Amino acid sequence: MFSVFSHEYYMKEALKEAEKAALVDEIPVGAIVVCRQQIIARAHNWTEHLTDVTAHAEILAITAASKYLNNKYLQKCTLYVTLEPCVMCSGALAWAQLGELVIGATDAKRGYSQLAPQALHPKTKIITGVLAEECGQLLSSFFQKKRS
Amino acid sequence: MFSVFSHEYYMKEALKEAEKAALVDEIPVGAIVVCRQQIIARAHNWTEHLTDVTAHAEILAITAASKYLNNKYLQKCTLYVTLEPCVMCSGALAWAQLGELVIGATDAKRGYSQLAPQALHPKTKIITGVLAEECGQLLSSFFQKKRS
Repeated sequence: MFSVFSHEYYMKEALKEAEKAALVDEIPVGAIVVCRQQIIARAHNWTEHLTDVTAHAEILAITAASKYLNNKYLQKCTLYVTLEPCVMCSGALAWAQLGELVIGATDAKRGYSQLAPQALHPKTKIITGVLAEECGQLLSSFFQKKRS
Repeated sequence: MFSVFSHEYYMKEALKEAEKAALVDEIPVGAIVVCRQQIIARAHNWTEHLTDVTAHAEILAITAASKYLNNKYLQKCTLYVTLEPCVMCSGALAWAQLGELVIGATDAKRGYSQLAPQALHPKTKIITGVLAEECGQLLSSFFQKKRS
């Protein structure tokens, strides 16, 4: 059972977004932005439907959160994402001066920690491995189905 | 004088975009995407007006070019940008598998070559220093006016 306002609770919400992506044949990565315990933005990967490589969950979530707050900086926000951000997304999170980043599964191939470990803002607090198994499993199943 | 289809010619077009940004008080960075000698996308930095850190010239140009081509990959395209891309934009250009990147001024502080030198796609051809002085001068003047 998830207690409200825990990292697991919010990651479960990000996972719901990822599941929505899978249903429409998008790589299942989901993200939400939380500010003062409230979810102010939700997004999932949307690159295929938009024919746009920049439409990652994190980018869409940053745009939506900034719109909601009418502020391009997200210092008081936490972004939950089911998969470790790529270089593009970590660079975007740095520009947004994100307060806290909570990551589900790691991405050994495309994750920022491999290619650009200094990409995030130095003040961003980073928490990894929240519901990592569930987050990773959703991706594995998706790619397994694709190959079969 | 600029000969048509030279890198200088196209960078001059990117500079026109950057000048438009300066006129509306946005940091003057411009980008264009060229495919088969035709300019298929033009954009400038739009972060302040959109209240969105992701609205860099390159990101907007990638989105517009992909829309035009109905293809999220830009392998046969050249992107001209007046300032060296940041980490976010270089990551986006990598996802797009950009064919060629032509850079005006370098960015010693925020450029990808400092923070994420491996961020671009390995097949992307990179040309730097095209109209570097003009591109850099536009930025210097902008920040000088801001400070005065």
